Amino acid sequence: MKFFQKEMILPRYRRGFHLITDQIRDEFSDIKNIDIGILHILVKHTSAGITINENADPTVRQDFESHFNKSVPENAPYYRHNYEGPDDMPAHIKTSIVGNEISIPITKGKLNLGTWQGIYFCEFRNYGINRHIVLTAYGE
Amino acid sequence: MKFFQKEMILPRYRRGFHLITDQIRDEFSDIKNIDIGILHILVKHTSAGITINENADPTVRQDFESHFNKSVPENAPYYRHNYEGPDDMPAHIKTSIVGNEISIPITKGKLNLGTWQGIYFCEFRNYGINRHIVLTAYGE
Amino acid sequence: MKFFQKEMILPRYRRGFHLITDQIRDEFSDIKNIDIGILHILVKHTSAGITINENADPTVRQDFESHFNKSVPENAPYYRHNYEGPDDMPAHIKTSIVGNEISIPITKGKLNLGTWQGIYFCEFRNYGINRHIVLTAYGE
Repeated sequence: MKFFQKEMILPRYRRGFHLITDQIRDEFSDIKNIDIGILHILVKHTSAGITINENADPTVRQDFESHFNKSVPENAPYYRHNYEGPDDMPAHIKTSIVGNEISIPITKGKLNLGTWQGIYFCEFRNYGINRHIVLTAYGE
Repeated sequence: MKFFQKEMILPRYRRGFHLITDQIRDEFSDIKNIDIGILHILVKHTSAGITINENADPTVRQDFESHFNKSVPENAPYYRHNYEGPDDMPAHIKTSIVGNEISIPITKGKLNLGTWQGIYFCEFRNYGINRHIVLTAYGE
Repeated sequence: MKFFQKEMILPRYRRGFHLITDQIRDEFSDIKNIDIGILHILVKHTSAGITINENADPTVRQDFESHFNKSVPENAPYYRHNYEGPDDMPAHIKTSIVGNEISIPITKGKLNLGTWQGIYFCEFRNYGINRHIVLTAYGE
């Protein structure tokens, strides 16, 4: 039984949905040492999320951005928390809808994702900062 | 400490929300060998999800279908990814809202769910294919 | 390798989003015995959720309540499951949008959350009952 953990700092991303599967794989090589196990990822922020979705066509990620902007609007008249800018409160809500932590099975040293699955980092603020994530891999 | 993993192929489901708790229990008998632990389930697709919800009244699952069809509409004018049919882009978005992976505690060889909780497999495409899921159970 | 598990009963909360980070830490002291690991939390109900979000300003939690009430309305004409009251079916849907289980990394005996992150218990019914949660902590 092995447990590995690493904190990783992502580059600054512009607002939107971004594929980070390869970065995770490359920067957390301990995944290779696990035959059967799990990789857990937490985004340590309240206005950025993480999810698993389509890894090929960039228009999917653009449509994600369009959908969530419409369904979680800026400047809704009922928002009270608005002193950090119009993109702030929607960013908090989007984070809890999409989620900010995921677990992925590891099989024979590799992430066991479907052919079309990739890991999306979701930057919900207009001007993203350097985001910290915690990677925890465990298994045998 | 034990780690078990199995890939399972679900039967084709029609579009909608479907209870699969019993299938998971029956097909992954290694759960019985764990006294304290976790079962993790990943759906290896980008247009189908998994969630835990009400296990008794079929109208709850029907209302889920109605709600998500309204809140993530087909043919939204801002969709760019539309060449795979009007149900495709909404299916991707619904997948990330509902989620495509869950973890459930195992206690004394059984899934420790609430009385009214069941596992929903969520088929978001009109014509679902055979969906693959990865089951990973671990504990002591 | 260690596995700890505990079932905890929350006090009755009124409808809304409530910070429970301190309660979890205080009532599940086994977290302190783990150097690298994971805490998993399941809410054993189908009309209450759990998520990680902003831990400082109460207006964020109020805006969450406002947003989800608008995006998952009561008395939608297409609901069939309505005999348990107008707040019941929306509560089920909100539960699957926000989620009812999360995993959080443990580092050196502490929950490794971001500075502004807290654990929200989300009571979606008008008159919440005592809710049961299962806490599972594991690691080395």
